[in-house]
Amino acid sequence: GIDRFAAIVGGSLGGMQALQWSITYPHRLAAAVVIAAAPRLTAQNIAFNEVARQAIMRDPNYFDGNYADHNVIPASGVGLARMVGHITYLSDIAMGKKFGRSLPRKDRDADGVNFAVEQYLRYQGERFSGRFDANTYILMTRTLDYFDPTIDGLTTLPDVLKSTMCKFLVLSFTTDWRFSPSRSEEIVDALIQADKQVSYARLESAHGHDAFLIPDVTYERIFKAFMNRIHHDLGKVQ
Amino acid sequence: GIDRFAAIVGGSLGGMQALQWSITYPHRLAAAVVIAAAPRLTAQNIAFNEVARQAIMRDPNYFDGNYADHNVIPASGVGLARMVGHITYLSDIAMGKKFGRSLPRKDRDADGVNFAVEQYLRYQGERFSGRFDANTYILMTRTLDYFDPTIDGLTTLPDVLKSTMCKFLVLSFTTDWRFSPSRSEEIVDALIQADKQVSYARLESAHGHDAFLIPDVTYERIFKAFMNRIHHDLGKVQ
Repeated sequence: GIDRFAAIVGGSLGGMQALQWSITYPHRLAAAVVIAAAPRLTAQNIAFNEVARQAIMRDPNYFDGNYADHNVIPASGVGLARMVGHITYLSDIAMGKKFGRSLPRKDRDADGVNFAVEQYLRYQGERFSGRFDANTYILMTRTLDYFDPTIDGLTTLPDVLKSTMCKFLVLSFTTDWRFSPSRSEEIVDALIQADKQVSYARLESAHGHDAFLIPDVTYERIFKAFMNRIHHDLGKVQ
Repeated sequence: GIDRFAAIVGGSLGGMQALQWSITYPHRLAAAVVIAAAPRLTAQNIAFNEVARQAIMRDPNYFDGNYADHNVIPASGVGLARMVGHITYLSDIAMGKKFGRSLPRKDRDADGVNFAVEQYLRYQGERFSGRFDANTYILMTRTLDYFDPTIDGLTTLPDVLKSTMCKFLVLSFTTDWRFSPSRSEEIVDALIQADKQVSYARLESAHGHDAFLIPDVTYERIFKAFMNRIHHDLGKVQ
């Protein structure tokens, strides 16, 4: 077993987990890197998750979650859930650049497939439904919705962060509207109020929430510099 | 029949229609008021519409659009479509103010209804599915997607607006992300390039796209002043 980690790093839901590690296990990590995350979901975030869950639960093949007993999967609902999710992970700019209003073929076909973006979304939905479990999707979105380090708002974020002992790096991306830079800045502000060591960068990107998964020179440079500093600090104390 | 209108006024899809009237029937209107609209939909706009259509078409009660023959309606799919739509009509701020993370009742119930925003969205979806026809929803979103005054981009917006002869009032709302102020400003810029008379206001609002339907003192004052001017101008020429 590993008793102590140099750093706990995560993006999106993973970023929220990295934040929670810093609170729950203050002695077990030297650093936490919280990327494209939020302290807790907004009503709009929850609303998008609820649409995804409803899409799955309304699929006749869902059978109240017991689809395995019936040897089926609610592929249509999961595909639809992924389509909604996918739009929220991309930015308006990125979708415009990638697809604009271009057509996949000359004429409108019988299915009404017309714009390239529609065909792309349906394909993403279908591919996803074949490899991702429906109940897991529901549980993961519920986990996101329920996540709240302030324990249902009974304390404040600076309060819960007071017990943390690690260094923080917080990163956000300009066109991320699922977890916008202002949500990351709530974490940064709370860390500053709790008198903790925090580095923050708001990175320029056209890729929306997906940016945290996409290679980028500045993103990698900042991450690398932070990790090198942690490595250097650990060398000194050992 | 009315040969000539003092003003053609519309919001959202209606705003796009008001714009089209000014192009198609330049002699038949003295003014056009284009509210919370866009010259044509972006890939992201189309993507949200496609999710709504897919939700309806994947409902087992849709029967390829022939649900009336089966004496059913695809209520589940239409409700889901409305849930997605509803989120995009509201702003993050408005949803946060109205619901935040508050719970409708003390405990999480068996259905997983938890946050007030979820219960609200489901209720809106159900209510809508009882009063709005599924095929109409599909056709209306298609009409929005296909709308393009530049005829598939073969001309430019200033080019098509050159033939207009009316005065324009264009209005947008700060938190509208379905048709953001920058989309209205594309229309304004094109009108200016086409050397047309245009007044523009970007109105402060927390209500997102829905703002165009909500009473507001400044909104009404600007609209009224413009209509009074049109009335006054018409009095002079008659």
